[in-house]
Amino acid sequence: MTSAPEPHRPSSPPRPPARPGHHGSALPEPSTIPEQGWHCGHTMYRFRRELICGPLSRSCQDQFRAALHSESGEGPERLGAYWTSGHRADFVVMAMDPDPAKVDAVHQQIMAPPLGQFVEATWSFVSMSEISEYVPSLDQYRERLIASGAEPDSPALVAKMNAYERRLPMMMEQRLRPEIPDWPSACFYPMNKSRVVGANWFTEPFSKRNAMMAEHAQSGMAYAGKVSQLITVGVGLDDWEWMVTLWGRNPQYLKDIVYKMRFDEASAKYGEFGPFYVGYKATADEIIEHCRMK
Amino acid sequence: MTSAPEPHRPSSPPRPPARPGHHGSALPEPSTIPEQGWHCGHTMYRFRRELICGPLSRSCQDQFRAALHSESGEGPERLGAYWTSGHRADFVVMAMDPDPAKVDAVHQQIMAPPLGQFVEATWSFVSMSEISEYVPSLDQYRERLIASGAEPDSPALVAKMNAYERRLPMMMEQRLRPEIPDWPSACFYPMNKSRVVGANWFTEPFSKRNAMMAEHAQSGMAYAGKVSQLITVGVGLDDWEWMVTLWGRNPQYLKDIVYKMRFDEASAKYGEFGPFYVGYKATADEIIEHCRMK
Amino acid sequence: MTSAPEPHRPSSPPRPPARPGHHGSALPEPSTIPEQGWHCGHTMYRFRRELICGPLSRSCQDQFRAALHSESGEGPERLGAYWTSGHRADFVVMAMDPDPAKVDAVHQQIMAPPLGQFVEATWSFVSMSEISEYVPSLDQYRERLIASGAEPDSPALVAKMNAYERRLPMMMEQRLRPEIPDWPSACFYPMNKSRVVGANWFTEPFSKRNAMMAEHAQSGMAYAGKVSQLITVGVGLDDWEWMVTLWGRNPQYLKDIVYKMRFDEASAKYGEFGPFYVGYKATADEIIEHCRMK
Amino acid sequence: MTSAPEPHRPSSPPRPPARPGHHGSALPEPSTIPEQGWHCGHTMYRFRRELICGPLSRSCQDQFRAALHSESGEGPERLGAYWTSGHRADFVVMAMDPDPAKVDAVHQQIMAPPLGQFVEATWSFVSMSEISEYVPSLDQYRERLIASGAEPDSPALVAKMNAYERRLPMMMEQRLRPEIPDWPSACFYPMNKSRVVGANWFTEPFSKRNAMMAEHAQSGMAYAGKVSQLITVGVGLDDWEWMVTLWGRNPQYLKDIVYKMRFDEASAKYGEFGPFYVGYKATADEIIEHCRMK
Amino acid sequence: MTSAPEPHRPSSPPRPPARPGHHGSALPEPSTIPEQGWHCGHTMYRFRRELICGPLSRSCQDQFRAALHSESGEGPERLGAYWTSGHRADFVVMAMDPDPAKVDAVHQQIMAPPLGQFVEATWSFVSMSEISEYVPSLDQYRERLIASGAEPDSPALVAKMNAYERRLPMMMEQRLRPEIPDWPSACFYPMNKSRVVGANWFTEPFSKRNAMMAEHAQSGMAYAGKVSQLITVGVGLDDWEWMVTLWGRNPQYLKDIVYKMRFDEASAKYGEFGPFYVGYKATADEIIEHCRMK
Repeated sequence: MTSAPEPHRPSSPPRPPARPGHHGSALPEPSTIPEQGWHCGHTMYRFRRELICGPLSRSCQDQFRAALHSESGEGPERLGAYWTSGHRADFVVMAMDPDPAKVDAVHQQIMAPPLGQFVEATWSFVSMSEISEYVPSLDQYRERLIASGAEPDSPALVAKMNAYERRLPMMMEQRLRPEIPDWPSACFYPMNKSRVVGANWFTEPFSKRNAMMAEHAQSGMAYAGKVSQLITVGVGLDDWEWMVTLWGRNPQYLKDIVYKMRFDEASAKYGEFGPFYVGYKATADEIIEHCRMK
Repeated sequence: MTSAPEPHRPSSPPRPPARPGHHGSALPEPSTIPEQGWHCGHTMYRFRRELICGPLSRSCQDQFRAALHSESGEGPERLGAYWTSGHRADFVVMAMDPDPAKVDAVHQQIMAPPLGQFVEATWSFVSMSEISEYVPSLDQYRERLIASGAEPDSPALVAKMNAYERRLPMMMEQRLRPEIPDWPSACFYPMNKSRVVGANWFTEPFSKRNAMMAEHAQSGMAYAGKVSQLITVGVGLDDWEWMVTLWGRNPQYLKDIVYKMRFDEASAKYGEFGPFYVGYKATADEIIEHCRMK
Repeated sequence: MTSAPEPHRPSSPPRPPARPGHHGSALPEPSTIPEQGWHCGHTMYRFRRELICGPLSRSCQDQFRAALHSESGEGPERLGAYWTSGHRADFVVMAMDPDPAKVDAVHQQIMAPPLGQFVEATWSFVSMSEISEYVPSLDQYRERLIASGAEPDSPALVAKMNAYERRLPMMMEQRLRPEIPDWPSACFYPMNKSRVVGANWFTEPFSKRNAMMAEHAQSGMAYAGKVSQLITVGVGLDDWEWMVTLWGRNPQYLKDIVYKMRFDEASAKYGEFGPFYVGYKATADEIIEHCRMK
Repeated sequence: MTSAPEPHRPSSPPRPPARPGHHGSALPEPSTIPEQGWHCGHTMYRFRRELICGPLSRSCQDQFRAALHSESGEGPERLGAYWTSGHRADFVVMAMDPDPAKVDAVHQQIMAPPLGQFVEATWSFVSMSEISEYVPSLDQYRERLIASGAEPDSPALVAKMNAYERRLPMMMEQRLRPEIPDWPSACFYPMNKSRVVGANWFTEPFSKRNAMMAEHAQSGMAYAGKVSQLITVGVGLDDWEWMVTLWGRNPQYLKDIVYKMRFDEASAKYGEFGPFYVGYKATADEIIEHCRMK
Repeated sequence: MTSAPEPHRPSSPPRPPARPGHHGSALPEPSTIPEQGWHCGHTMYRFRRELICGPLSRSCQDQFRAALHSESGEGPERLGAYWTSGHRADFVVMAMDPDPAKVDAVHQQIMAPPLGQFVEATWSFVSMSEISEYVPSLDQYRERLIASGAEPDSPALVAKMNAYERRLPMMMEQRLRPEIPDWPSACFYPMNKSRVVGANWFTEPFSKRNAMMAEHAQSGMAYAGKVSQLITVGVGLDDWEWMVTLWGRNPQYLKDIVYKMRFDEASAKYGEFGPFYVGYKATADEIIEHCRMK
């Protein structure tokens, strides 16, 4: 519903190669590969039990194994599979890749005939990885340490900054192209920041939001080595603003960290949460066996 | 639930030819063709995998190609097709035409037998293109420039106004009868302006709404050449007030612009958003291939 | 959950003939025919494409024609049919009659075998026509004119009152037993008046509600000859309080009037709206043809 | 989520016969029969038209008649059946009995094969009858009369109290074990009392709630002989707190009373309403005939 | 969406055996068995009547009996089954075990072919048992007694504390590994604590929340011997924060306690409730018989 001088519709159809933009900078080639971050897909599936009168056929089982077998060169860069508790889904598949077609291909491989007749995708979320605007730069980290009482230019501060500087590239890498930890449990849920009267995240100044996010990060640190998280962005792509993936060394830690964090102001006041799914890491064969489809 | 003197029910059935209205002006002939703007339809579809036990038949594939082949004289003025990520839909079709029957015909062509047995329309939105009341006229544009600090009758102001005057007809054309850019990605979502206590868009004066829309337009300008938008109106026709179509040179820009705009007052405080779908431009054959229906 | 002295349960089962009520007035015979107004039904249908592998059989087509053919003595007093845009429904049927069984019979005729196998009713609304409490009586109309600046007993006021007096019976008739205009488009939607804290229609005094309804009626007058409306009541019968039927000389007017009215206080602050459907007037044959069921 | 000293879990598994409770009083035997009131079930059904290609078989029709035939000794104490307007359901069945298994048995009889293949239960509500805490005792009734201006110990007051005393047992009976009136129409809907900030019924003192309920009862009295009501409780049993059953001498009265009562503070400010269904009293055969299943 | 120094992603993939955590404490081995508490599953099922044209086959009945027969060594530690009133489900199964795979195995046993063709899981909830943070320690219990007026070190206080000390281990046991009482009725519902503006549980200080929970516990004590409760936690695992299981000596008590507790501040102001299901304890055979599947 925006209005007014609308220079952002190109007067002629865009075409390769890169050409100067309105401000003199060259516009990149049209592409589906993000400049930063990867595409990410989470999909929940159930077996259509009403149509299954015996074990899954061998060809269906083979198709399932092939779809979840990311080690062939064909698959996406990252692929995780989990069986899940409860009636909404039997298993969850998570995929990440620079190419959105490769991410969606995992879903299409599962849904292709003949297996697709016996599987229903019951929920999904489409997102991208990114570096959040709340990750402090080296300078911001320094200011934060001083604000917390550190002496400027003290050896302790310098040591912490050096450590942060070394850690930063790996942290960035983990946000954009995370490795999936080899832990047995995970949980998945989407979230929004509220925009209701009296609790509108998007009308708060950056400084206030940044402080709340720092408090929130602090809460998470108590779970170092117990829970690992990935936040991907769904804004403009799917119905929620963010997708949270938590991997847990023990499912109890998933429950504990989400409960603890709910008291952080960022969550307590502004967090709106969608469906939660808990999953247990499994191979295609383990899913088939757990679901008694064999 | 309106009441009272109700002259707007004609005392005799309306009939051609045009006859004087209650205020002396001739009423136009009854018609389904809008006086301004085109009808617009967005429809999301999934293949009914539970019924598909092998490749789509040749006749189904031909029917699909014919429905999406807008170059024959039969189709609507505009037609765009996209495969989409996630479980809610496999593909999106967008059509525009002065005649609502031509827009809906694309949907009916897809849903006719035999193809219709294997396709489910899972979401849609019915709207019309129009010139928003917030698009500044030449005079309003002049006032806005002066309010932003421009010197009245300065050469710079005159130059800007001349440019705007030249751009205006093309802008109008793009709003009413837009060309679909040849970019690989798009996103689609409906929206309302909120009417809750404390954030009621419809009780704000025009001047305030206009200023917020100008700020919102300003946000969009940073994406010139990267994102192109179309706003169509669903008021009275479908469940949301507006439908937003964003075409992106890169899907990352879709995420970035929607996130950035969410902080504009018009969105942060008043925006209510429906389902978001991301799509990747594709021919009928590319959709069939991506969905492994061949 | 009402409590206390409950004289409104009869101590003996009610039985014909009419007997004195608790206040001495005779109670009418039990009946399904309202004392004032007609029963009204709006039903939206889609063809079950997943079950349709070729043209509808001749007997299904005949059944469809018979159900929508209100000119036989069997049908309800009023019957309108429309094809509709979008995925939620293929067509809309609207019926009115003093007898609720006659209204529902149209639905039952469509859903009976064999046609009923291939049709799904996807939405409906059950309501009754009535004279709204906000329609001014002759005296109230006089007061309203004087409040608007008219000179008491002036010839202009007298003339207006005479006109209103002549118009009133026809207006009443149109509210209770409306003729369906021969215009090509219509839209249908249910609505509530909100009861949220800070915007509670039902705790406003009658005078305030009446003034808002008069303003709302005024808005509608700009569309005289372009849009005709019917408000029916669903309170106690279906999930929304009112059903709005708008018939439009052009579908653009439907969009325009609903947008304009949304700024009236009665809508902006208190209106809650359900699903909107746009329809295009059509015979049974035209619906079958538009939906490619032939 | 209650915490702390939790004596209400028995230290040993409960077993017959009745044994002293924690406060010395004997606990009753475990049972499914309420100490006061009956179990109540309302269920809405539609015929699965997509599976019905001709008249219902004789055995299906017989099964339907048997399920709705409460006059055999097998059925529940009360049973009412209604055809209903609109697409959500074809008919409504209401049953009451001290034994919950007898109430549910009506539903199970309808859903058993072969009839159950062709019927879908689309909505239901599970509740119990009870004496509301807002029904005044004889003493409370006296206070209420005096508060309304009656002279203490006046003959008029004494007469009213005598009448109330005589009416009370019948009123209690009607609330706990109501007779279904032989009227042609009824409506059914569930409700909650709101607990939102600014309109929280459950934080109001009893005196305020009691006064609002008395006003509400007063509203109902205008419909003596026209509308009869039953309120059953769903708290702890189903998703809404109460279920309202209104029987109407004419369906117009159902619309009128619900509209009028919506202005009572108890409804206007605190009432939250679920789906509304209107029904027309019918035998099994009449339902079959109305739905053209014969 | 947390940000900043993120030490809680391990720099190398976690692997057995236990290794020092970031704070020097050894991290436990990855496991799906909680350190405290058991996994808990509640699942609601209906028979797919549309597919059932006669009695359930013997093999389906045997499969059902085997799935609900927890006495073999294979089943979970706790297993309860109930038939339920209303259209949403025919029966409820509740299971608890340290191993989530054993809990979900009950569901998978029911959904495996051939029985799974004829059963639909319509709702479920995934949770864990735990000791709530609101259960007073011995010291907190002492403070609470003194705050309620008890004399410090008085014999009465000492006696109460001794009793509490003796009761505490059993109370803990009942929260973590509860025995299912042999009572005929139960109800099940999930709940959240609200986070709306003006009633945000998670921004209240612990002392305030603790006091409200103590009041809530007090309410429950009136139902000692009549109702037994279990609260399990769904935070991070499913869509609601808690799951409530109430077992009732009589279903009336379930209604009574939930109604009474709704007036406690913890519920009235902060409680948000999901679907409620009432169930009646039954063996597999009793469910089959009640549902006329034999």
